[in-house]
Amino acid sequence: MIQSPRGTRDFLPADMERRRFYEGVLRQVAQRSGFREIQTPIFEEAELFILRSGPNILNELYAFKDKGDRDLALRPEMTAPAIRSFVNNMSNDPKPIKIFYFGQCFRYERPQSGRYREFFQFGAEIIGTATPQTDAEVIATALEMIKALGLKEYRVRIGHIGILRKALSRAGVPADRMPEVLQKLDKKLYDEAWPLMEDVGVSKDEADLIFEMTDTVGGIEVLEKVPGEESEYMRQIVSYLEAMGAGIPDIDLGVVRGLDYYTGMVFEAEAPVLGAEKQICGGGSYTLSELFGGEKVFSTGFAVGFDRILLALEKEGSTYPIKKMDAYVIAVSGETTLKAFEIVGMLRRDSISADIDLADRKMAKAMKHASSIGSRFVVIVGSEDLAKNSVTLRDMSSGEQKIVKISDLSAEIRAH
Amino acid sequence: MIQSPRGTRDFLPADMERRRFYEGVLRQVAQRSGFREIQTPIFEEAELFILRSGPNILNELYAFKDKGDRDLALRPEMTAPAIRSFVNNMSNDPKPIKIFYFGQCFRYERPQSGRYREFFQFGAEIIGTATPQTDAEVIATALEMIKALGLKEYRVRIGHIGILRKALSRAGVPADRMPEVLQKLDKKLYDEAWPLMEDVGVSKDEADLIFEMTDTVGGIEVLEKVPGEESEYMRQIVSYLEAMGAGIPDIDLGVVRGLDYYTGMVFEAEAPVLGAEKQICGGGSYTLSELFGGEKVFSTGFAVGFDRILLALEKEGSTYPIKKMDAYVIAVSGETTLKAFEIVGMLRRDSISADIDLADRKMAKAMKHASSIGSRFVVIVGSEDLAKNSVTLRDMSSGEQKIVKISDLSAEIRAH
Repeated sequence: MIQSPRGTRDFLPADMERRRFYEGVLRQVAQRSGFREIQTPIFEEAELFILRSGPNILNELYAFKDKGDRDLALRPEMTAPAIRSFVNNMSNDPKPIKIFYFGQCFRYERPQSGRYREFFQFGAEIIGTATPQTDAEVIATALEMIKALGLKEYRVRIGHIGILRKALSRAGVPADRMPEVLQKLDKKLYDEAWPLMEDVGVSKDEADLIFEMTDTVGGIEVLEKVPGEESEYMRQIVSYLEAMGAGIPDIDLGVVRGLDYYTGMVFEAEAPVLGAEKQICGGGSYTLSELFGGEKVFSTGFAVGFDRILLALEKEGSTYPIKKMDAYVIAVSGETTLKAFEIVGMLRRDSISADIDLADRKMAKAMKHASSIGSRFVVIVGSEDLAKNSVTLRDMSSGEQKIVKISDLSAEIRAH
Repeated sequence: MIQSPRGTRDFLPADMERRRFYEGVLRQVAQRSGFREIQTPIFEEAELFILRSGPNILNELYAFKDKGDRDLALRPEMTAPAIRSFVNNMSNDPKPIKIFYFGQCFRYERPQSGRYREFFQFGAEIIGTATPQTDAEVIATALEMIKALGLKEYRVRIGHIGILRKALSRAGVPADRMPEVLQKLDKKLYDEAWPLMEDVGVSKDEADLIFEMTDTVGGIEVLEKVPGEESEYMRQIVSYLEAMGAGIPDIDLGVVRGLDYYTGMVFEAEAPVLGAEKQICGGGSYTLSELFGGEKVFSTGFAVGFDRILLALEKEGSTYPIKKMDAYVIAVSGETTLKAFEIVGMLRRDSISADIDLADRKMAKAMKHASSIGSRFVVIVGSEDLAKNSVTLRDMSSGEQKIVKISDLSAEIRAH
């Protein structure tokens, strides 16, 4: 039996209704905040992702060649494609440009709990302004999404990559050694960071101060320990978040976010209910456009791990409204089948969701099917009622039945 | 400058708004008729598509290997994945199962007008019943979609693959030579079909009768020329379509639909405005589940070429409602910026779509931006108004301005 490929999933109707509901919530928050949707291809030139993330990304890509022998890859994320599309299509549009996107991404790794080879991201970017307001707007949008989804327990931490970079630079870490040190600090692997720092002549005291800094999480007072323009910038972000009523994230100077390309503010959100794989959202400010052949343009963006956040909502027991079919139409006998089809056609034209028996089944079996698909009403089409231009309408939750004129049927169903 | 790969497209905000609108129309018709959405992976084992379409399909697939050396391929269509998913996940569910799906498909061919390497299909299947009602329901749903989209000029033709197969069989074409003959007849290439038929001993008279049959298109009277159970079955389909008020397609006994797996009714819809590449929808009844390791189960389905039908709507000058941003908030000076952010937060919480200047721009520039993004209102936040807990609300279409209490602002915007 052929199965779906390893690390991918089939989403069945109940899954999809849930997923589309939550996708709709994210979409609504984004649109309400002035973001507009774009869509880029499922695959891109592999070079795009190498430029963003370095050649090691190739090990995690689904890559293939096209007939022109070009190296293509399924997208592992959507920020690089969005910025490529900006460079190609939108670079002359009035700034800032606020865009969002939703879709499949692909990662060629061992499948684990909550991690799939085909996974879904919802992301947004503000392109063309580099201000505390921009950063605040991005964080506020992410926070608003998490709240609108109904996630009960979450934690958001914001930091500034510049504070840590400056401290490392002052302590003697040269620019070319910075990425490896930052990578260790990002994971709080101080024992592994120290030899790297010692190697370039950082003193133990300076290293300890830096370790302490990356390990400090708290309120706005955390910024007092690291005075400077970055701190001032962070304070402004917080003041805009406060004004918007967005809620105040924790300040965490240890947020590094793995990737080299961040230039300033960085933030992450996590759902503790998920345990070890708890990150549900991450973002920050960066520049990428110049790598793809455009002018250097500052951007701030974030992505929500859609599968992860849905898993968190599920673990919290979150529910969503289920839309039921309005009516299931059953012909009592073969004689009334055509009339039953006439009625189902009428109901649908009146914007009532309606289904009908397609297999000439007996009443009892058809009733069972109506109940298995969760229809709110059953419309029973029999000769006796038809003689009076009527049908029998059964309310499936109460079990009540009444005879209703066909001309009143849509209104009657709509009224309940 | 890195571009999107050949044959793929970036959809910018205005494109996406249009596409999501029409996708929503299709989605609504499907749901109203009792179809529920599923989603399958972007790639599948290549074998799945070979089983459906034969090994030649490999030339048209984007194929690659996974780390377990399995041959994978980007999906060229979604019927085979849907039926695979049915075999894997839904085979014990109550029948019929009515599903729909929407997404990207991939075809490795020379890009042409209206044909892309990454394209979008919207499809639906009814699995588990083989009745005229089932076929009528599928055709009615397709017709309803085309009507709901607002396409003005279209033509739907239905046929029955069994009528032509029986005629060919009676004339002496053996089962193993049938596909090549059908392929020529599908394209009305009679000069090329004839040698193939002659080769297996079909007489010229019989061949001419068959050619005439495949070339006949018309009303229900066409069926009189080909009496038999298939004809009777077609009459029943038409009577259900009539009852539902779905409109009556042309009868066209020459509809073959390229693929071998169809077992009975076949249909196609076309939009003449598209010229040569005019097919916008096609479907029929088939069995596939047994090829994928399941029991043999009859299905009927169809797919709409989403890009093609959107092109047809565009050529017909069809329009769709554009949703505008409700409000753009502008601070008159730096002093009122925080208050402006407070107001934008309030509006969004009140479900009003609102945007705000993020770059400390002067009034005139910010006003220009508000007008470039097409905002309905501008909210001007100045110190004088604020002293009276008010702001100035400007209607961007009439140019009228008035002073509004902040507490009344959401209601005031909502009222227009």
